[in-house]
Amino acid sequence: MVFHYPNGRAYDYHKNENHPSLVNKVNHRSINHNRSKTIYGNRGMSLEEEINESNQYYLSQGIAVIHKKPIPIQIVSVDYPKRSAAVIKEAYFKQASTTDYNGVYKGKYLDFEAKETTNISSFPLRNFHAHQVEHMRACQKQGGICFTIVKFTKTDELFILPADLLFKYWDEQDKSRKSIPKSEIEQLGYKLNYSISPRIPFLKGVDLLIANS
Amino acid sequence: MVFHYPNGRAYDYHKNENHPSLVNKVNHRSINHNRSKTIYGNRGMSLEEEINESNQYYLSQGIAVIHKKPIPIQIVSVDYPKRSAAVIKEAYFKQASTTDYNGVYKGKYLDFEAKETTNISSFPLRNFHAHQVEHMRACQKQGGICFTIVKFTKTDELFILPADLLFKYWDEQDKSRKSIPKSEIEQLGYKLNYSISPRIPFLKGVDLLIANS
Repeated sequence: MVFHYPNGRAYDYHKNENHPSLVNKVNHRSINHNRSKTIYGNRGMSLEEEINESNQYYLSQGIAVIHKKPIPIQIVSVDYPKRSAAVIKEAYFKQASTTDYNGVYKGKYLDFEAKETTNISSFPLRNFHAHQVEHMRACQKQGGICFTIVKFTKTDELFILPADLLFKYWDEQDKSRKSIPKSEIEQLGYKLNYSISPRIPFLKGVDLLIANS
Repeated sequence: MVFHYPNGRAYDYHKNENHPSLVNKVNHRSINHNRSKTIYGNRGMSLEEEINESNQYYLSQGIAVIHKKPIPIQIVSVDYPKRSAAVIKEAYFKQASTTDYNGVYKGKYLDFEAKETTNISSFPLRNFHAHQVEHMRACQKQGGICFTIVKFTKTDELFILPADLLFKYWDEQDKSRKSIPKSEIEQLGYKLNYSISPRIPFLKGVDLLIANS
């Protein structure tokens, strides 16, 4: 639910997508600026929007409760106009210390990221920050189910990348390659196909992760 | 971990605590503005800070992974000064659609709020928003462990208020009282005592909730 305050306009990341400093800050959260317009059923939504919509479906059907966390912001100054809402006048983007999504499904704690790549045959590890990987490791130790929803945008293919497979390549990246081969993701992850409701039925992949955990 | 950007100063809610519009906006998130200075071991920290410190302890000891969610913000305009971080120039506080804290502990999904009252003998239901109660209900249906850490500030007493007890009074508030008697919380909740590490050992109460779930 988005509340619109008086004079409030939704902020459009896309308008500023070419500015490098913004791209640095929000690159890994507001994903998918340069989508081709050849769409196979996702109607130009970003991966984030597709997942939010899927979460909304799962919530409305009583299947799971999963939310995207708000973008962390360091607030420096706030104005308090009389008889209207407080206005934040100066604030900065902070680096998140966790992943973007978490929630509960069938008694299990879920924790995941959503990432896109324009690469064809591998998924670059530079898409992850060290703290995200450490967070997933800590959650998995507590019995959480951790993964990444990976999208290969050139082919509109979606996969669930289990955290264990990410950890394996992450830990070896200094002496080995800095990306995960798509063939490995195909073999050890789970392919997701777009559907109507939910748009991305990622809990099907989660069921398999739970069965194998 | 807080990142300080160039020229960034931490924003201090306390400076503005008397302004009604801010109080409206951040009341239920940045808790505990009017603490007495008679402290029994919590050294003037707000309840939120105490819980954050406790979560930090649990994380560092590998006991649980629990984080406070960022405050949700609607961004309206952002500046991109050359060679420095993007500055948010206009943004508004949004109402959160979930509770403030969630995480994973012993394979369980935890979801909770932290609330204070200056009342002596009861805890007013107006401390909660309908969407927070609905969110806890949805999480509990999925097998999550939901509760509120309640602080009676006049006596520095802390309790775990199980979600079921909250739901009971919440659902009856139209035909009955609009607060939960402290005696009920003492009887059906769990009293928490301040300790050194962690400052608020709330997972002890969670163990009892899990045992009874």
